[in-house]
Amino acid sequence: MTAKPNTPLLDQVKLPADLRSIEDKDLPQLARELRDEMIDAVSVTGGHLGAGLGVVELTIAIHKVFETPHDRLIFDVGHQCYPHKILTGRRDRIRTLRQEDGLSGFTKRAESEYDPFGAAHSSTSISAGLGMAVAADLSGTPRNVIAVIGDGALSAGMAYEALNNAGALDARLIVILNDNDMSIAPPTGAMSAYLARLASGRTYMGFREFGKKLTAYLGKNIDRAITRAVEHARGYVTGGTMFEEMGFYHIGPIDGHSFDHLLPVLRNVRDNAQGPVLIHVVTQKGKGYPPAEAAADKYHGVNKFDVITGAQAKAKPNAPSYTSVFAEALVQEARHDDKIVGITAAMPSGTGLDKLQDVFPERTFDVGIAEQHAVTFAAGLAAEGYKPFCALYSTFLQRGYDQVVHDVAIQGLPVRFPIDRAGFVGADGPTHAGSFDTSFLANLPGFVVMAAADEAELKHMVRTAAAYDAGPISFRYPRGEGVGVQMPERGEILEIGKGRIMKEGTKVALLSFGTRLADCLLAAEDLDAAGLSTTVADARFAKPLDHDLIRRLAREHALLITVEEGAIGGFGSQVAHFLINEGLLDEGLKLRSLVLPDVWMDQAKPETMYAKAGLDAKGIVSTVFKAFPGLSQEQLRVLGV
Amino acid sequence: MTAKPNTPLLDQVKLPADLRSIEDKDLPQLARELRDEMIDAVSVTGGHLGAGLGVVELTIAIHKVFETPHDRLIFDVGHQCYPHKILTGRRDRIRTLRQEDGLSGFTKRAESEYDPFGAAHSSTSISAGLGMAVAADLSGTPRNVIAVIGDGALSAGMAYEALNNAGALDARLIVILNDNDMSIAPPTGAMSAYLARLASGRTYMGFREFGKKLTAYLGKNIDRAITRAVEHARGYVTGGTMFEEMGFYHIGPIDGHSFDHLLPVLRNVRDNAQGPVLIHVVTQKGKGYPPAEAAADKYHGVNKFDVITGAQAKAKPNAPSYTSVFAEALVQEARHDDKIVGITAAMPSGTGLDKLQDVFPERTFDVGIAEQHAVTFAAGLAAEGYKPFCALYSTFLQRGYDQVVHDVAIQGLPVRFPIDRAGFVGADGPTHAGSFDTSFLANLPGFVVMAAADEAELKHMVRTAAAYDAGPISFRYPRGEGVGVQMPERGEILEIGKGRIMKEGTKVALLSFGTRLADCLLAAEDLDAAGLSTTVADARFAKPLDHDLIRRLAREHALLITVEEGAIGGFGSQVAHFLINEGLLDEGLKLRSLVLPDVWMDQAKPETMYAKAGLDAKGIVSTVFKAFPGLSQEQLRVLGV
Repeated sequence: MTAKPNTPLLDQVKLPADLRSIEDKDLPQLARELRDEMIDAVSVTGGHLGAGLGVVELTIAIHKVFETPHDRLIFDVGHQCYPHKILTGRRDRIRTLRQEDGLSGFTKRAESEYDPFGAAHSSTSISAGLGMAVAADLSGTPRNVIAVIGDGALSAGMAYEALNNAGALDARLIVILNDNDMSIAPPTGAMSAYLARLASGRTYMGFREFGKKLTAYLGKNIDRAITRAVEHARGYVTGGTMFEEMGFYHIGPIDGHSFDHLLPVLRNVRDNAQGPVLIHVVTQKGKGYPPAEAAADKYHGVNKFDVITGAQAKAKPNAPSYTSVFAEALVQEARHDDKIVGITAAMPSGTGLDKLQDVFPERTFDVGIAEQHAVTFAAGLAAEGYKPFCALYSTFLQRGYDQVVHDVAIQGLPVRFPIDRAGFVGADGPTHAGSFDTSFLANLPGFVVMAAADEAELKHMVRTAAAYDAGPISFRYPRGEGVGVQMPERGEILEIGKGRIMKEGTKVALLSFGTRLADCLLAAEDLDAAGLSTTVADARFAKPLDHDLIRRLAREHALLITVEEGAIGGFGSQVAHFLINEGLLDEGLKLRSLVLPDVWMDQAKPETMYAKAGLDAKGIVSTVFKAFPGLSQEQLRVLGV
Repeated sequence: MTAKPNTPLLDQVKLPADLRSIEDKDLPQLARELRDEMIDAVSVTGGHLGAGLGVVELTIAIHKVFETPHDRLIFDVGHQCYPHKILTGRRDRIRTLRQEDGLSGFTKRAESEYDPFGAAHSSTSISAGLGMAVAADLSGTPRNVIAVIGDGALSAGMAYEALNNAGALDARLIVILNDNDMSIAPPTGAMSAYLARLASGRTYMGFREFGKKLTAYLGKNIDRAITRAVEHARGYVTGGTMFEEMGFYHIGPIDGHSFDHLLPVLRNVRDNAQGPVLIHVVTQKGKGYPPAEAAADKYHGVNKFDVITGAQAKAKPNAPSYTSVFAEALVQEARHDDKIVGITAAMPSGTGLDKLQDVFPERTFDVGIAEQHAVTFAAGLAAEGYKPFCALYSTFLQRGYDQVVHDVAIQGLPVRFPIDRAGFVGADGPTHAGSFDTSFLANLPGFVVMAAADEAELKHMVRTAAAYDAGPISFRYPRGEGVGVQMPERGEILEIGKGRIMKEGTKVALLSFGTRLADCLLAAEDLDAAGLSTTVADARFAKPLDHDLIRRLAREHALLITVEEGAIGGFGSQVAHFLINEGLLDEGLKLRSLVLPDVWMDQAKPETMYAKAGLDAKGIVSTVFKAFPGLSQEQLRVLGV
């Protein structure tokens, strides 16, 4: 633990209005203090460090020049917003970042009027900003709307859709391209190469040059037609830029750590811009903190760490993470089958595909933040007989949903979908929770939908997916560590649509889909002890369902409970639909379905979240208790309810 | 009925191999015959006319130059594929287009090896083609992959994601940009304006100029480094193009109706191209058929028509279409509330938003084929107090699913989603069916999900959505005409989460969500006559559910059946989940859930599809019959089962 940083200037800034009374010449000192404060806070909480460090000067400059919150400032992704939070009335809570009941790790409307649009997924800011700019126009409210978006986020189609629309609408929108040549992974794609050419091909323009250029374009007394002509001529001579072709006035690249560059440009744009403007700002991720600057990922996401050394606290894991088990199993299968290829959307390390890339670089594809393309690209490979594993987080698979339906499922193409981060994700909160994948996949005809109950099961499912070639297949697994089960040398090929019984009982049946199985087994111990003999089964498949298993559970028990870490409409709904339409509920079997609660749950420790959701052993026991109102006092005592 | 066209040359072409033996000089005649044949076929079947007419020469030229099906030809959207189908062994079935058991109106893998990748939604072809090109590289198979994509489709983000990735991978992919300056609606967006500048700013290049240019770039004996240098120099001098910035070699624009332009360019690219190439081809939608050329929408989609006059058969409608009821109700509400704005993704006429545009052009936004952006743009407007109606077809809303979750629902922003084409869509088949919206929306916390039972209900729901400001709200309605009910002067504001009872009975309860209500009422007549007194209720809301109504139906009847035109996981699953977890099924109530069957249903008449799905009156009666195995012979007679 280090002493709290000394921040005399920052201490005077409760809100951006205070910042506006600080003189320009003192802003570098404010930036140093803000950086120190942020480093200290994240050293306590963990979280996103590098991105925020890279935009300290930019954040200060924007709040200095623009009248936030009347002017709207939208941070794309939002993980670079910690300095912004410190400057906008949330410094007193900054050490609760990503903790239960604390500040969100992203921008959040409910948290502050200075967060006019929340974010956490990438590439939404230009669309939202354009909506706000149009609203300002429609209502006749003079207002600046500023979207700050990273270069990595520009690989996503929705950013392009928004640029395309903004250019056509000619709305007064200010897009600040924060080019740090580094999103989470090294950036990929032609756009990234293009930005690099822009940034390297021209030297940074000095202020005088800017002044001339801006005056020529933006000067108040100059007719827009003339400025257009100037712009056109400039494009004709210098080649223009893609952003200019899209209808944006393009300024830059400029040095995003220099107030001498940032302030005059922002002021000029504020006072004079008419249509859409794109300011290309070059920053350094992790800027000002040597351990972050030196790290390959620039301390993108960190655990708690020591401020002096930068050493991150690492909890000693009990078992390998699901991600690493998936990655190793995939590499293993890829050694056996040269048709296996891996696809990631800008998450090589998050999905573990970096391990495949190490061994089979020519069979690993990082397509950038581009989930729509990732899915259909995989479908194209599958159409040619390859075995693509399109590895996405559950929450990001939502971006490719139409492609899953239209390009994969309708055509019955055997694309494999490893779905990481399925279920609660702890500190990342509701925007990153993997809640809906089972419900939006299991209703697609011909899809095989699996969930791994533990890390050994995950290994089986990787092999099963590799072997299955009759259509699309998915398998979900959670964030975090496995449960420490014995691992097989190699995964087995599971029979499609067959579950397994873990323990036999006679009164209550718990049918689990996914990793809640461990809590079902714990609950069964308590239930057995209370004289409610309990069967526990692992469904493995939400589709196709194991009809034989479900019929047997229905016929041989008085109560059947389905348990899953997913929203309504998924596994439990599949089971209920089957039981209902088969008439298996007509004879008095009690059925209960445990799913994620119908609320957006804020970040907390996973165990807390399970308890709140009623998806831990205690919640399962409690469901049984409520289903049997006639339990004896002794049974209730044993059950602890 | 006209005489079948005279097509001596086309008669010799069963497959593309036959076409390849026709001399270049005779291809214009083949094009004329192919055009005549296509016009005649579509005059019988109805379907997409203008798009196919525009690519007759291009389709012939591609099959002439490339070795399909070994070379892969992917048509984006696929609705321009009728000439392709005629040339690839399907001419004998071309007059079954879009009919039951006939040819699909789109490309379809199951139909022909000449359709290597099916399409129907826009902008997928570059992604799929890139997957195929990479597969060819990986397997060492020399193969050309050609993606033909329209200019309108380029506004979609996924096309950009694919270009971005292709440019970076440097794969051997040939993208043919079919620029007809006309998708369905006049194109929107900066990209469209950019293409127009490209097309108008340069005259078409003559063949000699092309030859020189191509030789310089592609000449076999010229080192790739040199060609790159040439390319770079050219970009430096002329400004380059966006496609070149994205890593594509860009040729064009060229005249897409001239074999003199098409053949040498395609041959040169085939023989010499190395990395990704984009050929910009300018065509005229509806080319060669004067009525189509003269029509504003170029006969994009037509009914059966008279070949001589071009007059389309119009069935006399019994009632206004749902789309027009929605549009008129929206205009009416917009007159009362100036915060109402409308958003469409390139479907102003399909969604009826053209009517809003006529009256309130400044409050109507066509963002292009860009559903992701459309949703988040709407969210931005909602965040500023506007009341956006983001009108999409059910099947296209899938493209914006993550934005619905992340930008709208998590933030609780009151975006209104009118969902057109919900349920079966007849001739357009499975790619356009609106099957999944209820299941993927009703599981989102805080969402209000409605379905209109008839056109008067739709009018109420437009007003209800306009009045509701507490969060996101959707209402679905089908393709086609209403049922002819009396229309109110203005819609009423419905109470959120309240259904209505249409008729009272005692034994069976039918709980409908959406327009299947009419068939429920028909079924109830039969059931009543057979002594099974039937209640019929219209749920109106899948979320929030009307718990009081459902409890009452459960308690007062022996059998409850939910009926909806949607996949499993939607309304029926919501009702089942409630009944199960409330213990309302424990006491012997029979519950059944009628949903869309778990198959991809090919195109047919809607009535046929309802019968197959068991979702017509007869199917409902049959479900009741099966639930009561003890019915008397007399009851069975009355029920007709």
